[in-house]
Amino acid sequence: MSLEASVSSSRRYLPEMTQAGLTPTSPVTAIDEYQRVREMHVADERPLTIYVDSYEIVTLMTIGSHPELLALGYLKNQGLIQDLKEIKAVQVDWEVAAVAVSTFTNRDDWKERLGPRIVTTGCGQGTVYGDIMERLDELKLEPQTLKQSDVYALLKNLNAHNDVYKSAGAVHGCALCQGTEVLIFVEDVGRHNAVDAIAGRMWLEGIEGGDKLFYTTGRLTSEMIIKIACMGIPALLSRSGITRMGFNLAKDLNVMMFSRAKGKHFLVYTGAEHLQYDVELPAREN
Amino acid sequence: MSLEASVSSSRRYLPEMTQAGLTPTSPVTAIDEYQRVREMHVADERPLTIYVDSYEIVTLMTIGSHPELLALGYLKNQGLIQDLKEIKAVQVDWEVAAVAVSTFTNRDDWKERLGPRIVTTGCGQGTVYGDIMERLDELKLEPQTLKQSDVYALLKNLNAHNDVYKSAGAVHGCALCQGTEVLIFVEDVGRHNAVDAIAGRMWLEGIEGGDKLFYTTGRLTSEMIIKIACMGIPALLSRSGITRMGFNLAKDLNVMMFSRAKGKHFLVYTGAEHLQYDVELPAREN
Repeated sequence: MSLEASVSSSRRYLPEMTQAGLTPTSPVTAIDEYQRVREMHVADERPLTIYVDSYEIVTLMTIGSHPELLALGYLKNQGLIQDLKEIKAVQVDWEVAAVAVSTFTNRDDWKERLGPRIVTTGCGQGTVYGDIMERLDELKLEPQTLKQSDVYALLKNLNAHNDVYKSAGAVHGCALCQGTEVLIFVEDVGRHNAVDAIAGRMWLEGIEGGDKLFYTTGRLTSEMIIKIACMGIPALLSRSGITRMGFNLAKDLNVMMFSRAKGKHFLVYTGAEHLQYDVELPAREN
Repeated sequence: MSLEASVSSSRRYLPEMTQAGLTPTSPVTAIDEYQRVREMHVADERPLTIYVDSYEIVTLMTIGSHPELLALGYLKNQGLIQDLKEIKAVQVDWEVAAVAVSTFTNRDDWKERLGPRIVTTGCGQGTVYGDIMERLDELKLEPQTLKQSDVYALLKNLNAHNDVYKSAGAVHGCALCQGTEVLIFVEDVGRHNAVDAIAGRMWLEGIEGGDKLFYTTGRLTSEMIIKIACMGIPALLSRSGITRMGFNLAKDLNVMMFSRAKGKHFLVYTGAEHLQYDVELPAREN
């Protein structure tokens, strides 16, 4: 798998970490329109409070399958910790619904920054600390040339990956991709959690974003573009739609952006000049 | 319209309010898979920071069509202000992307409660202050009997209402319904914003939830159930799926909950005993 090949994990610093991922779905009974009893599966949703040393940072609502990566990626994407070597350990304890991130650094300056207590849920996530918008000014993304045929091959490969969605729905899937290949696929009840878990793994394994693509089943809103840009990824595909602010940000940050990418269909909103049309499609109907 | 009939607005206290709703979509150009230039519409997404007197409460990402109702409903649903009469005015100024809620009450106790500064985005929303879970203990919801035929008639009536979704996608719709009728329909880029805007209008007009149904195109996660229950609405329909925690909460709070409600299909997860099956469906295929 090309992911392993691109990572020289033996030389990298790794914090101590639990492996406390939980099963993402559980069975439940419903009654349908025929009055039939149906055995369904639903996605789990669990609160997980992130602590960094003595600071309570945030409570995320998560499916719980990648709690350590989620915590790491959250801290990275929020700009709260920049260097992995600052982190001593990431320890999840579901009995208290918490992940304790312990560090080597003194964080006296956080008291003012974080406030006494912030509890967040929302679509699984929502609080943005710090000055992310300022970090964006330093970003220079450079989309690579994409072939239409490769986009189609990638979309086809992505179909194999949305396990939870197929069985239970109520989740969004996100993927880190390279060429036509899916490197990492994560599903979560909060679409931002899925992005953060991928950011956590990229951070842990030293994976660069510059030659990658990001795929999401969710909508491309402003925060999505900001996160993907902070992860250094210059191309973004969504099965869903975009917002005006997402469009404006993608344009400003030089992110190539596809929406409604499904089967043979897509709409390129930004960066169309990097797309090579190399597929002969059947004559269009309208 | 039954909404007007159920409200005796002339006797109610109303804060001073701007009417600063903005157009929800704007045009943008995309290139499709046939290399055609397509004139599309996208949903707008705008930051709106809520201030209560001198306190900065939260920044929501919203489509901007109902900013006053959104601010009111947010404050009500978060339990930050309980009595409408405390509110003197709700004034939106898009030039500074802010809504100023001025009150008659001294809020010295908020300093500790809110912390110095919290900026939220996420799926348009996400911070929960206060002790909402404690408020839930006092709730006793009583689902009314629903007829399958009325559920179908309501779903049909709902089809006329999702204007933004039809033209631009990237939004969720929420509706307050009574019987087969849609009383209020709101779309927003954040599904919680749409719920809050409806809560704001219910608060303003003194509309009770007990004899209503709530419909959403979005998923039924824990926070959704909590908000709808706090609004006193005992029946909930979603076009999407549910999470385990949403299911558990609906069960505990005695909320009747339908998922995958679309056309003739639905799944009743809780409160099926309140549903009267009065429709002869064509023989099922599987």
